[in-house]
Amino acid sequence: MGTFIGHISPGFAFLSFGILYSFKFSLLLLRGEKIPLVSAPRPAGFRSCLKRIPIEGVLKLLYGTLAVMAEFFYPPGVYKLILYNKEKPDYPFVHPNEWQHVTMYAHFALSGWVDIINQACLSRRVFLYESIAIAIPFYIEALLLSNHMHGKEQVENSVHTMLLLACFLVCLVLTVELWRPNDPILWFTKTCLVMIQGTWLLHAAFILYKPLTGKPWKDNDMANLMFVINFFCWHIALNILLLLAIFGLTAFWLNRCSRRGRNPAFQRSKETLDFHLEMADGAAPRAEYEKLHAVEEETHLLQECDP
Amino acid sequence: MGTFIGHISPGFAFLSFGILYSFKFSLLLLRGEKIPLVSAPRPAGFRSCLKRIPIEGVLKLLYGTLAVMAEFFYPPGVYKLILYNKEKPDYPFVHPNEWQHVTMYAHFALSGWVDIINQACLSRRVFLYESIAIAIPFYIEALLLSNHMHGKEQVENSVHTMLLLACFLVCLVLTVELWRPNDPILWFTKTCLVMIQGTWLLHAAFILYKPLTGKPWKDNDMANLMFVINFFCWHIALNILLLLAIFGLTAFWLNRCSRRGRNPAFQRSKETLDFHLEMADGAAPRAEYEKLHAVEEETHLLQECDP
Amino acid sequence: MGTFIGHISPGFAFLSFGILYSFKFSLLLLRGEKIPLVSAPRPAGFRSCLKRIPIEGVLKLLYGTLAVMAEFFYPPGVYKLILYNKEKPDYPFVHPNEWQHVTMYAHFALSGWVDIINQACLSRRVFLYESIAIAIPFYIEALLLSNHMHGKEQVENSVHTMLLLACFLVCLVLTVELWRPNDPILWFTKTCLVMIQGTWLLHAAFILYKPLTGKPWKDNDMANLMFVINFFCWHIALNILLLLAIFGLTAFWLNRCSRRGRNPAFQRSKETLDFHLEMADGAAPRAEYEKLHAVEEETHLLQECDP
Amino acid sequence: MGTFIGHISPGFAFLSFGILYSFKFSLLLLRGEKIPLVSAPRPAGFRSCLKRIPIEGVLKLLYGTLAVMAEFFYPPGVYKLILYNKEKPDYPFVHPNEWQHVTMYAHFALSGWVDIINQACLSRRVFLYESIAIAIPFYIEALLLSNHMHGKEQVENSVHTMLLLACFLVCLVLTVELWRPNDPILWFTKTCLVMIQGTWLLHAAFILYKPLTGKPWKDNDMANLMFVINFFCWHIALNILLLLAIFGLTAFWLNRCSRRGRNPAFQRSKETLDFHLEMADGAAPRAEYEKLHAVEEETHLLQECDP
Repeated sequence: MGTFIGHISPGFAFLSFGILYSFKFSLLLLRGEKIPLVSAPRPAGFRSCLKRIPIEGVLKLLYGTLAVMAEFFYPPGVYKLILYNKEKPDYPFVHPNEWQHVTMYAHFALSGWVDIINQACLSRRVFLYESIAIAIPFYIEALLLSNHMHGKEQVENSVHTMLLLACFLVCLVLTVELWRPNDPILWFTKTCLVMIQGTWLLHAAFILYKPLTGKPWKDNDMANLMFVINFFCWHIALNILLLLAIFGLTAFWLNRCSRRGRNPAFQRSKETLDFHLEMADGAAPRAEYEKLHAVEEETHLLQECDP
Repeated sequence: MGTFIGHISPGFAFLSFGILYSFKFSLLLLRGEKIPLVSAPRPAGFRSCLKRIPIEGVLKLLYGTLAVMAEFFYPPGVYKLILYNKEKPDYPFVHPNEWQHVTMYAHFALSGWVDIINQACLSRRVFLYESIAIAIPFYIEALLLSNHMHGKEQVENSVHTMLLLACFLVCLVLTVELWRPNDPILWFTKTCLVMIQGTWLLHAAFILYKPLTGKPWKDNDMANLMFVINFFCWHIALNILLLLAIFGLTAFWLNRCSRRGRNPAFQRSKETLDFHLEMADGAAPRAEYEKLHAVEEETHLLQECDP
Repeated sequence: MGTFIGHISPGFAFLSFGILYSFKFSLLLLRGEKIPLVSAPRPAGFRSCLKRIPIEGVLKLLYGTLAVMAEFFYPPGVYKLILYNKEKPDYPFVHPNEWQHVTMYAHFALSGWVDIINQACLSRRVFLYESIAIAIPFYIEALLLSNHMHGKEQVENSVHTMLLLACFLVCLVLTVELWRPNDPILWFTKTCLVMIQGTWLLHAAFILYKPLTGKPWKDNDMANLMFVINFFCWHIALNILLLLAIFGLTAFWLNRCSRRGRNPAFQRSKETLDFHLEMADGAAPRAEYEKLHAVEEETHLLQECDP
Repeated sequence: MGTFIGHISPGFAFLSFGILYSFKFSLLLLRGEKIPLVSAPRPAGFRSCLKRIPIEGVLKLLYGTLAVMAEFFYPPGVYKLILYNKEKPDYPFVHPNEWQHVTMYAHFALSGWVDIINQACLSRRVFLYESIAIAIPFYIEALLLSNHMHGKEQVENSVHTMLLLACFLVCLVLTVELWRPNDPILWFTKTCLVMIQGTWLLHAAFILYKPLTGKPWKDNDMANLMFVINFFCWHIALNILLLLAIFGLTAFWLNRCSRRGRNPAFQRSKETLDFHLEMADGAAPRAEYEKLHAVEEETHLLQECDP
């Protein structure tokens, strides 16, 4: 929907995923863990399957499905699930914007399905499947955005071009991640770009539909176009700060947990990070590193900090 | 030929190659095999040479040659094998579209020749030669497509831009494959993109020459341009599903063969895949892997499942 | 500021950094040293922290902050720290050029802060943080430059396009350097591109605001546009020569120091370089190399050549 | 010079270098040799220096210098070594085309100087210097070509765009070669692209200044633009065939030399190639390979086949 709510809601979705990723990858890095490319074989059965259903996948599925529904049936009373207008003589296509949005959201929902099936139902979780399933909707989004500008005004195009830039960079990062899934630089670049997409969509909703000054941005004013770019640059900086803050918070939280001594697994997190840093510089002998990892048992997010 | 049949026939050709590749690479992956970069030396002699002629190469050669013939002499009675019109005073070039298509098809036919000579006649098969020979026609196709749009209508241009996108990505994948010929991600990306080119050409034939509604798509209607992109996105998703279905079918078929116990080579295929997955995660010791491979003799496609 | 001084001052800043980098990387290469990815843990305390403050970071911070100030308050009496003009009825944005420049300079200043905090305050210096912090302002610069051309004249656009080209290549190099921080080819490519940006901005100031002939460049003259590109090519060659001269000077200076025998650390520099060259060719056994490095103690820039 | 001879002469230069490279790299590949990244230290002295002067470098220097001279002083009586026209009131730039060509040619001549100094005068030949020195003129050429089209006709632009494409791909290959100087795929890609530039410039001279039909190509005829691309595709195929022919010729010649038994070094060339092929497939044990190379003494081009 080319409306205020149609930009606000995907903005919140991207932002919430970005923040979720920030925590997830901060934890992974701080505890020196890696994403396992293929999981160990898992018990079959419906109950153990249900237990393994991932929140991230369910969220993607939910957001995607709701967005598809909203495009077709929101506001209530609207019915846009038609392709042709059969009443006009030359059968013109209708609702092109809605169908483009639906295509986008449906692919994100599909990615959620792949996450759920892969993490819960298959006998092994193969991480590559999820990487591919999330790369495709971003490619689709980039493709649609780059052709979304027919007959629109300059300010709207400029706003969408910036969105396309962030989206295209996410595509690049996700493509490289197919071969390098455990590169922390890529993890955080991706996270930051997804957050930028989120906050930029929120801002875009205000620029295009509810300007704070109450006056719509004029298209023939060069200053407006220049400020669109300027604001986007500020979003980059702000989201990097937000990412840093979340990383710091996670580090602080991990640290406090380990000092309380309730969970010995966390006492090792700081050592592990120090170790990784020394590894990066080639100073620490590999043997010691292996030893460190040999004693590390699997720990899970939800076990943390509970008394 | 800028006609219905001129888009349908290359569409079928690309689609059939895509499906052929799907089966081929699914088998390769499921059985944990690799493409040998250089074959063992082979017996000389005309008969052993004839036996080695590859179906894929012959198909490329056949399709390519037929298409070249069709451009020049189809429908019967037409003769377009001329460059200049010598009757006009300034000798203008004629049939630019036909000559561009011929250039494209001729390079695919050449790629077929290289396949045949390399696989059947040379004393060793060097896989690199075939990789180069198939990359060039796709580059040529991309080059011609990107300059094929002079003086055409918007809908036609939009359709061809999407085709160009798929073609260009195939070029990129084929270029990377020169150095990484045994990367399964690249295998299936390439396969999927070739299938997309195929189904998109089929769809394009209907959009441009036989619209299902019976009314030609109007060029000045923005909705039409947006739906072209939309349909292309759906082709991406559908071809990925088709690829998955073929992969599943191959896995099911391999599995059934191995259970029937007729061909012991297939009993190992599942083990091999499991092994590869564990390798990817670094869990399986390399020594065991070598052992597994040491007992694996060469098996061929046509030996499979016969009683 | 779209003025003579507004192009001269960043020109000098880039050029001085380029020259600083030339000396720094020449020294690193000639002495066979590498940038340590993570430093050893360092003593805490305010005084030892103060001692570690890096000149490069302070310069970036100083230049960046001064430039931001100048955009808003120079020439004296001017006050441009406003976004909206609240007196006009539709609250138009004002000073778009100034705000774009401020965004750019502020990010360079931020990079200076990161350098100072990372090198002086943190318990370990992690080189990656500085690499990211310097890559971002160049990306921001590229983004702003590529949208800086609304409503400008052709010569000005052409000048800025060349600047954008150099800036974009710096971005690429800095991105690759995140993964390969110790590649000498990248070091010198980056250095040369920064120097080109510097000298080109100096030249641009004269082209746009003080043409040497006293007559402004006409925009409708094709020859002018062609000479802009031509001059840029000459800048490439001249900056490569400048880089070579600085490299030669450093080599000569290092050599003289070592011959004077005052600092034994420098006698090893030539051996080390010879060794690296042989290593590159695979001729020198690795064991000898390790030996060479084992005796190498840490040496610092400021210890050099003092009696 | 935007004249017939101004396109024919660089065409011949590129083509002759392409053919020279074809022989050089075919020999390198067939004999299983590699380009040494750094040579052994060489005797000093003026005479031994003179002996080492490379033909390739001298040719580049000669062609480049002659081309620069021709731009300024050809045909005799012309004098174009001026930047400004001081007689006109606003001092306009003159001869923009000539100065762009001079910039291009001068950089190729500089590359020749680097070759000569590096191979003849320095105490060690560092291959990287030559790689950089040849990459720069191609980048300059690409930069100038991409801005060479102001106010020109469509056919001329289309011809130059194809040239730019080949030139840009050479730049990419040369950039990758800085890090991978011994990759045979890159060697032959580069060679082929340089030959394409050569033959295309020859063809372009005829298209633009001496059309074979005697009638100039009309710019408003779409067919002409399409045939420009078409012809370029044929150049790709023809130059690949030319490259293959030269490779075959070299192989045949090496083979005959070795059969005549005059030079035992050549008897090993075929074995070496077979060995490389097996290595590529991982079949040949490395130990045997080392043995093969251990007995291989250095052989030079000019020793070959002499009685």
